[in-house]
Amino acid sequence: MENLNIGQHISRRYNEELEDIRNRVLAMGGLVEQQLKDAMTALEKRDAGLAAQVVERDCEVNAMEVAIDEECNRVLARRQPAASDLRLVVAVIKTITDLERIGDEAERIARMVSTLVREEHSTRLFTQIRNLGHHVSSMVHGALDAFAHLDTEKSVEVWSEDRLVDDEYDSLMRELMTYMMEDPRSIPSILQAMFAARAMERIGDRAGNICEYVIYLVKGKDVRHTRVDKSG
Amino acid sequence: MENLNIGQHISRRYNEELEDIRNRVLAMGGLVEQQLKDAMTALEKRDAGLAAQVVERDCEVNAMEVAIDEECNRVLARRQPAASDLRLVVAVIKTITDLERIGDEAERIARMVSTLVREEHSTRLFTQIRNLGHHVSSMVHGALDAFAHLDTEKSVEVWSEDRLVDDEYDSLMRELMTYMMEDPRSIPSILQAMFAARAMERIGDRAGNICEYVIYLVKGKDVRHTRVDKSG
Repeated sequence: MENLNIGQHISRRYNEELEDIRNRVLAMGGLVEQQLKDAMTALEKRDAGLAAQVVERDCEVNAMEVAIDEECNRVLARRQPAASDLRLVVAVIKTITDLERIGDEAERIARMVSTLVREEHSTRLFTQIRNLGHHVSSMVHGALDAFAHLDTEKSVEVWSEDRLVDDEYDSLMRELMTYMMEDPRSIPSILQAMFAARAMERIGDRAGNICEYVIYLVKGKDVRHTRVDKSG
Repeated sequence: MENLNIGQHISRRYNEELEDIRNRVLAMGGLVEQQLKDAMTALEKRDAGLAAQVVERDCEVNAMEVAIDEECNRVLARRQPAASDLRLVVAVIKTITDLERIGDEAERIARMVSTLVREEHSTRLFTQIRNLGHHVSSMVHGALDAFAHLDTEKSVEVWSEDRLVDDEYDSLMRELMTYMMEDPRSIPSILQAMFAARAMERIGDRAGNICEYVIYLVKGKDVRHTRVDKSG
């Protein structure tokens, strides 16, 4: 299997194009991370203003996805990349889809804030889901880090976290359900908290997807739907 | 803008490769449709055996995604497609991601059946979500049809359905919530019904995504995150 040869092309312009695509993915990742962080802060502090800002900025994430996608198509058409360059472009096309959808989930979380700020007893709920939110935020950060440094060890590490997130989510759901049964009046707000938790769980999935693309990009091997281990 | 020229290459082998990719996407779509249909039937009839079969067959969907993805990468590397051929391959790479995730949602719905079969009062819940399920199933069917015939009118039509699905989902959720409040003992099973409904709503989203790729493929225009209308 050939080594990654980004930055080793005879055409300087081609190098620059590939570098530019990578940088734009990282910039998009940075914005998505910020959106997720802001959505979490809005949820914790019941800050409807910040939540509204997250909702509004989602179109920036979408615009970045479309722009990077077009750039990838241009490179595919003009440069006809092969081997690791081709894998980079394909991995980018997939990564930005997941990033855009992490952005959508952040927007979804932010939209729940406006419902929750009206509830008296919502502080307890926020605390319950805060840990899950921090866990998946750190997964997104780790996945982008793995992408930035083409680090497969880090990819496997972050990818493995997803199972822990799933367990955390399941136990949180069971807990929220007992609250509902104890106090049926709290059902509407607890449901919102459950949907926020579900959005977080899905963010963990998507961070895991990005890690799989990094492994594919570096190793030239499709690890989706299979067990990933360090020997891979 | 150039016309679609699939089937008009000098190399017969290249034509066959592109045709083969399209056929495999349609075969994968057929399996995903069947999975969704079986998951819905299992839910309606509380058939735990059929549900288990859906869960088991999800790996077939995953394997098809990986195989088509590899074939796309091979064509990109060997044939260096341009213009509409390139758009076809990129559209396929995206379409199969959404198909695979529709398959995941079908699996999720099937997994809920085993929880629900134990509940006495679940028949009413099934009826509630059946309509939503049929609605999104017909969207998936329509999206695959649009893909098969590269039919942009059909794409716009199916894509527009997604807003109706969202409305249907919202009103269903409100209804399920009032049941919860009336009878807190029903909370666990209603929650399962809610998650099944949410899975269906997401299937509608993904069918809409596939329609966008068809428009992109035929018109060479990215319509994501913008309003699609018939003048487009």
